[in-house]
Amino acid sequence: MPNEKTHDVLIGGGWRPARNPVAFFRAADPSTGDEIEGLYPVSDSSDIEEALTAASAVAPAMVRTGPEAAADFLEAYAAAIETRADELAAAAHRETGLPVEPRLRSVELPRTVFQLHRAAHTARDRSWCRATIDSQANLRSKYGPLGGPVAVFGPNNFPFAYNAAAGTDFAAALAAGNPVIAKAHPCHPATSRMFAEMAFAALKKSGLPAAAVQMLYHMRPEDGLGLVSDRRLGASAFTGSRPGGLKLKEAADTAGRPIYLEMSSVNPVFLLPGALRERGDRIAAELFGSCTAGAGQFCTKPGLIVLVRDQAGRAFLESMKMEFKAAPAQVLLGKSVLEGIRAGLAAMTGAGAEIAAGGNAPARPGFRFESTLLIASGGAFLGRPQALQQEAFGPVSLAVLAEDAGQMRNIAATLDGNLTAAVFSHSGDGDEGLYEELASILRTKCGRFLNDKVPTGVAVSPAMVHGGPFPATGHPGFTAVGFPAALFRFAALHSYDHVRPHRLPPELQDRNPTGTMWRWIDGEPTQRDV
Amino acid sequence: MPNEKTHDVLIGGGWRPARNPVAFFRAADPSTGDEIEGLYPVSDSSDIEEALTAASAVAPAMVRTGPEAAADFLEAYAAAIETRADELAAAAHRETGLPVEPRLRSVELPRTVFQLHRAAHTARDRSWCRATIDSQANLRSKYGPLGGPVAVFGPNNFPFAYNAAAGTDFAAALAAGNPVIAKAHPCHPATSRMFAEMAFAALKKSGLPAAAVQMLYHMRPEDGLGLVSDRRLGASAFTGSRPGGLKLKEAADTAGRPIYLEMSSVNPVFLLPGALRERGDRIAAELFGSCTAGAGQFCTKPGLIVLVRDQAGRAFLESMKMEFKAAPAQVLLGKSVLEGIRAGLAAMTGAGAEIAAGGNAPARPGFRFESTLLIASGGAFLGRPQALQQEAFGPVSLAVLAEDAGQMRNIAATLDGNLTAAVFSHSGDGDEGLYEELASILRTKCGRFLNDKVPTGVAVSPAMVHGGPFPATGHPGFTAVGFPAALFRFAALHSYDHVRPHRLPPELQDRNPTGTMWRWIDGEPTQRDV
Repeated sequence: MPNEKTHDVLIGGGWRPARNPVAFFRAADPSTGDEIEGLYPVSDSSDIEEALTAASAVAPAMVRTGPEAAADFLEAYAAAIETRADELAAAAHRETGLPVEPRLRSVELPRTVFQLHRAAHTARDRSWCRATIDSQANLRSKYGPLGGPVAVFGPNNFPFAYNAAAGTDFAAALAAGNPVIAKAHPCHPATSRMFAEMAFAALKKSGLPAAAVQMLYHMRPEDGLGLVSDRRLGASAFTGSRPGGLKLKEAADTAGRPIYLEMSSVNPVFLLPGALRERGDRIAAELFGSCTAGAGQFCTKPGLIVLVRDQAGRAFLESMKMEFKAAPAQVLLGKSVLEGIRAGLAAMTGAGAEIAAGGNAPARPGFRFESTLLIASGGAFLGRPQALQQEAFGPVSLAVLAEDAGQMRNIAATLDGNLTAAVFSHSGDGDEGLYEELASILRTKCGRFLNDKVPTGVAVSPAMVHGGPFPATGHPGFTAVGFPAALFRFAALHSYDHVRPHRLPPELQDRNPTGTMWRWIDGEPTQRDV
Repeated sequence: MPNEKTHDVLIGGGWRPARNPVAFFRAADPSTGDEIEGLYPVSDSSDIEEALTAASAVAPAMVRTGPEAAADFLEAYAAAIETRADELAAAAHRETGLPVEPRLRSVELPRTVFQLHRAAHTARDRSWCRATIDSQANLRSKYGPLGGPVAVFGPNNFPFAYNAAAGTDFAAALAAGNPVIAKAHPCHPATSRMFAEMAFAALKKSGLPAAAVQMLYHMRPEDGLGLVSDRRLGASAFTGSRPGGLKLKEAADTAGRPIYLEMSSVNPVFLLPGALRERGDRIAAELFGSCTAGAGQFCTKPGLIVLVRDQAGRAFLESMKMEFKAAPAQVLLGKSVLEGIRAGLAAMTGAGAEIAAGGNAPARPGFRFESTLLIASGGAFLGRPQALQQEAFGPVSLAVLAEDAGQMRNIAATLDGNLTAAVFSHSGDGDEGLYEELASILRTKCGRFLNDKVPTGVAVSPAMVHGGPFPATGHPGFTAVGFPAALFRFAALHSYDHVRPHRLPPELQDRNPTGTMWRWIDGEPTQRDV
């Protein structure tokens, strides 16, 4: 153990030192590269074991306390976050380099609070669980908790909205009635600690068990594999890199434990000839902003831009180059992002792409990179489609110049699953034929399909899908954002056959438990009693 | 190629000989063991490749034709099946040994027809796709087809209701808008051929493409792995043994292709002391029927019966033994079932269970086995819980005699995921405390939870869950039976962000496409237009 006081982990209903830490770490300020005060433990398997035991023990109690207690908790927690908003923004800024204003303080924090409130509303409303009653067969079903905890692995790029102890996965898992074991991202331990402190204080005021929320700062990769494959686990949710995600997926799949992953996406944007002739400059400005906002560190950053090499296409590309060249280098989330960009650029240039703007890390302190635009011909892309559709997480995008509309279609056909796909087309019917062909191909390759709009900016809406086919995620039928849909990842489908009335969960008893909950009774949605 | 004419496969919109069959096979009559006329090909990978190519090519057309064409097809097909009901029952009886009456002709066939009609109704109604409209954000979402075919692997035990070319998976996949590649079970090729002939005739009368349904009789295991992991595949559904299912799961998981599996289940039944004191004999008769109906070859057969070794428990067990001993040996589905039973019995007796009734295969023609009851003490079970909760597919059940209620709870806690779990308790409140404890444990270990009722008999109801946690299936959030819920296995979640009104699918346009479809508009279910 070091001489310096180290931070406690939140396990088993209280804060305590890590049991047998395998190491300690500090966060770094990515704008300077300097270490930040505060020493955090890397837990070994004994902390994970204890967290699993504690969470499994409280899972049945959470079924009994019901959705009101979870909703009370989520609301109290949201209110607490608002009282410490400035402090949170300052801590997250220091740990991530993301600007306090507007990003952290005025966008991501309010969004995080909003998500917690939507999750609370969803839990309280209860309609999400799709109570279905067949009164003739006396058969009743609903979605219910998994019976074990949800392990949430938070990413580096959203210290609030996807934080393992405060973000969308956390909120959805609790709203669905499950305990959470949060595995914070080691980039921002102080931010995560503040969240977990507030969560724990809010827990104690709610009717939920004290071990309903637990948090570890860091663990070895092999212990992560052990966690997601543990028999007691209900499910896990991971947002991060593809290599890490695939390893967790394999372990969880082998053990038969559900896992939801958001692993990578190039978010293709197709710019049709009529759109570029009509408004190429406006699209260039908008798209440049989307490619480079937050130093390109969004899951939905447009990493692949496909256009035809006609006059309007070439003019558009010149505008884009100028925008990219004029932009200052931005601070990245950390060293690993910088390394990832370098590896991605090497892979893409090795596969035939050329750097048209940017491409360098300035020799300034910390971890920064220039806004970078690569160009490849349609032929080059079709020759190496896998190498050229890799995500380079950061301010890096590849523009592919297709010979013609036919090549554009062929490019679309080679694409893997993505979170989003967008098509910009002529505001009249100038591009309608090509649009239809592309839309038919792209629709099944993404979760969210956009028209004339950049993909960054993921609205917390019931109609949002932040998901998509493999390898963007692990399953095309789910979303990580949007209530109530995000809850289904953390729910099991339960049927009650001939179960005596007083033993049914309230949502399936004859009497509507809230008077307003929507249920499907004998084939129709209704708010009435049976 | 043999001299005898061999049967064609249905691939690419027509019947044709298998391209490069690796072998040919005949079905056997399990009541005699004799071969049945008719030589069927084992396809090699070139048939599978062609089926995948054809199905992928028609998937976009099926999106355009929309749900009416699929519903027309399903209804025409259902009507055709009814006209050949006697012929189908005769063929299936010969291939499976299952009785024509009432099982095949009066139970399973009508159920199969009903399922097809429910699937058609679900497709036509459209409410299943959960159209969700956020009018303020102009964001709209719904479940849509996967963009590639669904491979359906049919089991041996339901030649109609789970037939790869006619059963619940087939119906759900088509109703959700996907082409189907059916892989028939080699136990009943003639039955499957008749279905596929009728399906193909009905296809030609509907607006669906001719390659929307394809069928192969058999393939090598390695080609099955290739099929479920093909990049063009939307998803696959498998009903069968655990070893086979786990291999397919691994291949599909690695490739990131969704797979739904129904692999095994012991369907535990807990008999509480008050229930046995009150009505032990009635329960024994009912449970015996459930254990041995269809020679125990149901997915939901009670394979594990847990009771307390008190006076009523011992009396119950004597009744059960008498029932099992008095029952004649039954014809099994085939040789592999007989071999599976022998292996299962060896494993269970090796782990400490004793045979209390049955246990033998009569030296008569064909494949038969006695109704078999094993007994183990609660202590023995807790010593080898994994070995003693293996499914022995056939008329075999294990009764576990617990010392007391506490041991009963401990037994429940060791159970893996199952399709069903049932508790029989005193009709008053005589068992209420123990019931509550057991229900809390068992609820999260099964898809369908029953009171005072045997688990065999799976109603086709919107509130049915024929699913459950691993290893009963691969994911606890889905069901293979019941409409509309069964469709979600074969659907992707699609969001439309700012998509121009005329380009939206009909279900998401402002105007309700049917006038009666239920959609969630701005948070409320409604049948109105936007």
